[in-house]
Amino acid sequence: MVRHPLRPLDLKNGRVELAHGSGGRASHQLVDELFTRHFHSSQLAACHDAGILPHVSGRIAVSTDSYVVSPLFFPGGCIGDLAVNGSINDVAMSGAKPLALTVGFILEEGFQLADLDRIAAAIARASQNASVPIISGDTKVVERGKADGVFLSTTCVGVIPEGVHIDPSRARPSDAIIVSGTIGDHGTTILSCREGLSFDCDLESDSAALHEMVSAMLCAAPDLHVLRDPTRGGVSAALHEIAATAQVGMRLWESAVPVHPTVRSACQLLGLDPLHLACEGRLLAICPTDAVEPVLAAMRAHPLGSQAAVIGEVIADFPGFVQLQTAYGGHRLIDWPAGEQLPRIC
Amino acid sequence: MVRHPLRPLDLKNGRVELAHGSGGRASHQLVDELFTRHFHSSQLAACHDAGILPHVSGRIAVSTDSYVVSPLFFPGGCIGDLAVNGSINDVAMSGAKPLALTVGFILEEGFQLADLDRIAAAIARASQNASVPIISGDTKVVERGKADGVFLSTTCVGVIPEGVHIDPSRARPSDAIIVSGTIGDHGTTILSCREGLSFDCDLESDSAALHEMVSAMLCAAPDLHVLRDPTRGGVSAALHEIAATAQVGMRLWESAVPVHPTVRSACQLLGLDPLHLACEGRLLAICPTDAVEPVLAAMRAHPLGSQAAVIGEVIADFPGFVQLQTAYGGHRLIDWPAGEQLPRIC
Repeated sequence: MVRHPLRPLDLKNGRVELAHGSGGRASHQLVDELFTRHFHSSQLAACHDAGILPHVSGRIAVSTDSYVVSPLFFPGGCIGDLAVNGSINDVAMSGAKPLALTVGFILEEGFQLADLDRIAAAIARASQNASVPIISGDTKVVERGKADGVFLSTTCVGVIPEGVHIDPSRARPSDAIIVSGTIGDHGTTILSCREGLSFDCDLESDSAALHEMVSAMLCAAPDLHVLRDPTRGGVSAALHEIAATAQVGMRLWESAVPVHPTVRSACQLLGLDPLHLACEGRLLAICPTDAVEPVLAAMRAHPLGSQAAVIGEVIADFPGFVQLQTAYGGHRLIDWPAGEQLPRIC
Repeated sequence: MVRHPLRPLDLKNGRVELAHGSGGRASHQLVDELFTRHFHSSQLAACHDAGILPHVSGRIAVSTDSYVVSPLFFPGGCIGDLAVNGSINDVAMSGAKPLALTVGFILEEGFQLADLDRIAAAIARASQNASVPIISGDTKVVERGKADGVFLSTTCVGVIPEGVHIDPSRARPSDAIIVSGTIGDHGTTILSCREGLSFDCDLESDSAALHEMVSAMLCAAPDLHVLRDPTRGGVSAALHEIAATAQVGMRLWESAVPVHPTVRSACQLLGLDPLHLACEGRLLAICPTDAVEPVLAAMRAHPLGSQAAVIGEVIADFPGFVQLQTAYGGHRLIDWPAGEQLPRIC
């Protein structure tokens, strides 16, 4: 007995149809002919509703983020690798070793299968580069006009090594504040795509998975106090959150903060502050002063941390506030913006 | 030093703004004044990017699903409890004990905060009823017209008890097929809301978390072969998937399948087959014949399994196909629909 087969997907000119989200044969076809071609995990192949990880022992870290970035493709990446790297980073910022990923797709009817294929390939590549397999997925389709192409939701699960206690409440006066590289590259890249600005240079998103550098940092200095990736809201929002949680102040030294010249020019042109712009492959580390040298050495030995720098210090006053010592020696408070500099940055 | 406070959220007449997804102070306000009021988990309060679970030892099951159900509110539930129950069930169907949930919101600018508050309350209630805490979350906002009110993505993480090996490939000829209750209640409820049909009765969605009944079933019969919740595509899609994976056939007895009279009437009226309609709080169990009595007893002792029944058997022929023995003694093949009976059912 044979079942009448469906026509193969047209990955060149085809489009997403409502039937691809039905749970019926068309859904299976999308998974078999598009997703499974890219995602090879044996767990995914087992056809469970849930993905299964081998035996784990330890504290488990879990993070889910939804991604709605616009445009979907931008210099340095696309929504696919952005989502994979972002969820890996959220788990890595707790000190955990990422073990597995899940991906949920919300697709708009009519979205081009060729673009979905590019996004799936980017997800697979980012997962393979990071050695974190995709073990489960889900696809929903909504009617034309009820979404904006593709939204993704990625979850990363990791295990926290014994003895690691990264926690924003552990920031202490005299601790050093370290950043792993230039800030605001991702935000400026998205801004330039959206506003049709074309900065005459090679600026691209910094999107990257930071877990391997984190692992090296924790080897070098297991007593790291805080890690945070400054995504939406940038370095300013990340430090304000930590300052509020730990009830400490922060002081940054403007001249120490690494900023790509193009980002600096764009900010001057548009009246923006690099401290508010999103990064997607940078981290902030807060550590005791005696850990600064080993942490910096570990970061600079990794390609993603070659420009790592101490950019400031935790201080007692004023709890919840972040100050900037300007290049000219003055001081000003850094704003914690209420609203939106740029929607849909990630 | 004090920071100028934002005006409190107007939970009665306010609306979602783009700033609520910015990662700045407005995002924090939405979390503090709306979400945290409902979600009390101590992990959530710890203000990490990732949620942290206490020490776990065992195989880990993870499932992420996105929810785009339309309408958002329906008899018997809303998108919030549907998402919580759905992710718990996906993990429970691997035999795992669910440990924690994460929730990601994609919100459309202009969505009423009062409705978001109702959805958050429903998520919290479902999580508490199931004793599975929410440990992490994320909120994104897209411009008006770029989404449809609210989309949710929920992830559940669980641990698989020693000795449990639920796997769709374990379905064997002569195994019994059991269903936990009436089928198609959720699909028919959504259909009636969407088409403006008003069935004169008390039919409502069957949305429910099944993990406690699963736990009782596994106590009674640790050698259960397969569990599956028949959501999108209904009992037909679920059994076709298992039949294809295990390379077995299935035979259902039409007169044994429990169907609510209103669902039956609606199907006759609209030319639908209850076997294709989604359930959101039912499960299919496939088990060796000697486990049928203890499994049925465990199910019937649980409120969600009071109507549990054996509805068919696994057979050798024809691999990948599902047959129905009709009430009149005839046989027909059950279709595995290619497309969509009803989009956005979950």
